[in-house]
Amino acid sequence: MTAQIIDGKAVAANVRAEVGKAVAERVAAGKSRPGLATVLVGDDPASHVYVSSKRKACAELGIESFGFELPADATQDKVEGLVSELNADPRVHGILVQLPLPSHLDEEKVLRAISIEKDVDGFHPINIGRLAQKGRDPLFVPCTPAGSLVLAQTVIPKLEGCNAVVLGRSNIVGMPVALLLVRANATVTICHSRTKDLPSVVRQADVLIAAVGRPNMVKGSWVKPGAVVIDVGINRIEDPTHPKGSRLVGDVDFEEVKEVAGAITPVPGGVGPMTIAMLMQNTLRGAELSDK
Amino acid sequence: MTAQIIDGKAVAANVRAEVGKAVAERVAAGKSRPGLATVLVGDDPASHVYVSSKRKACAELGIESFGFELPADATQDKVEGLVSELNADPRVHGILVQLPLPSHLDEEKVLRAISIEKDVDGFHPINIGRLAQKGRDPLFVPCTPAGSLVLAQTVIPKLEGCNAVVLGRSNIVGMPVALLLVRANATVTICHSRTKDLPSVVRQADVLIAAVGRPNMVKGSWVKPGAVVIDVGINRIEDPTHPKGSRLVGDVDFEEVKEVAGAITPVPGGVGPMTIAMLMQNTLRGAELSDK
Repeated sequence: MTAQIIDGKAVAANVRAEVGKAVAERVAAGKSRPGLATVLVGDDPASHVYVSSKRKACAELGIESFGFELPADATQDKVEGLVSELNADPRVHGILVQLPLPSHLDEEKVLRAISIEKDVDGFHPINIGRLAQKGRDPLFVPCTPAGSLVLAQTVIPKLEGCNAVVLGRSNIVGMPVALLLVRANATVTICHSRTKDLPSVVRQADVLIAAVGRPNMVKGSWVKPGAVVIDVGINRIEDPTHPKGSRLVGDVDFEEVKEVAGAITPVPGGVGPMTIAMLMQNTLRGAELSDK
Repeated sequence: MTAQIIDGKAVAANVRAEVGKAVAERVAAGKSRPGLATVLVGDDPASHVYVSSKRKACAELGIESFGFELPADATQDKVEGLVSELNADPRVHGILVQLPLPSHLDEEKVLRAISIEKDVDGFHPINIGRLAQKGRDPLFVPCTPAGSLVLAQTVIPKLEGCNAVVLGRSNIVGMPVALLLVRANATVTICHSRTKDLPSVVRQADVLIAAVGRPNMVKGSWVKPGAVVIDVGINRIEDPTHPKGSRLVGDVDFEEVKEVAGAITPVPGGVGPMTIAMLMQNTLRGAELSDK
């Protein structure tokens, strides 16, 4: 059996198209144009690429974007001061502080400074705290975790009662995706580097979310036949046969696992495109919240 | 084989003795006497009993307590106003708003009004959010979850790599205990009413935390031989053979499970006494935080 390949690009394109349509409609109705402010501190090349992709997506969907760049040695006060200004700016409905921040900055303090009504990344501790609590809805859900769930739900619309296994417990993916799965009424197991006999734990998953950052770690023999496998990993490995000498792979050994799983996301073209699509959706939501 | 009975009363008495000693030492050293403010809204008899036990424990350990009672129809503003006053009162190092609140009040908003430096119940969304995130330490950990872990660790001091199963996902016990177990490097499975084939999931637990509020639900056949079973449930069931016509039982069928488990907490006398002991520890911690 060969698994269904979950086309993240196509799903993300649908989400983006819907957001673009809603933006056009609200602007036509005389409401504010959604605006996203991006804050980039320092010179990390990968962060520059991410921020510029996000701003490009904004432009395509009619969302205004405001780019701010601060030097790598910007002080805590400077970064928080900028965030305060953006909190007060009515043109800005979402504030994205690109992580990671330089190590001299207190990341949690910066994230806490963002107004929770503009926390489109969903990493404000209050939004994370609400995600972990029944009956308390976060205003925004972190983008990559939300996108991972959307992809799983293209195959299993109702995750209720599924055995879901989350590999990895990072602040950005593993833990919030686990909290989302609990909210979706799945039975959730959180695994990590200290888990004993990982293959046998993973083999219980009806839905597996792999987010550990280890190339090709999950083997075919680890996966329950028919399982839905969402691969959040993006790892660059050497490959002399490739023109660039390297290529991107996920945390899942795609060639092996696609022969066992029921459905699987590819890398690239799986979860990756969903992150920006969900950010656009969150920015639209920020604008909608400001209407009230 | 008969399981070791984990004596929660004895463990709690040790914690309380340590807190009492530390209180006496800090007062002797000229530092502030720890103070706990309790806020009770309405006439729920169980809540009255809980609050009075907490104030009694304070008195025993040299902690000052300040009791506030508001009528069942107190407005949101009234409750938040009282919390603000207590935030500003230097004699108060911990603020405990007894839950549940009457249904017309916004519970999360009340909890958010508490200064996180005085959040001895650990339910402020920022403290819960930090609990869910690596590298971000909550100032206070919720009392019953913390006490449950202390009891498990009397048998397995290092929970790293254990398979821990949490039965229940409540805001007050299940979810925070799961987050604490992840922080302790256990592999954690969160089960609940929608979990399929619950007995077989529970049977994988090296450590089982039962917190669902269903009398005697967990049977002997559900438990892995040698497992550590922490029973958070406190349920009153009819029993005509008892003088009162009823008695307290946990979520675990104690008589069956003690023949299979390696260690088990009784009900009463297990987790129950730990809750107040951890609250006293948190109040001391609140006073220590105020020293800085």
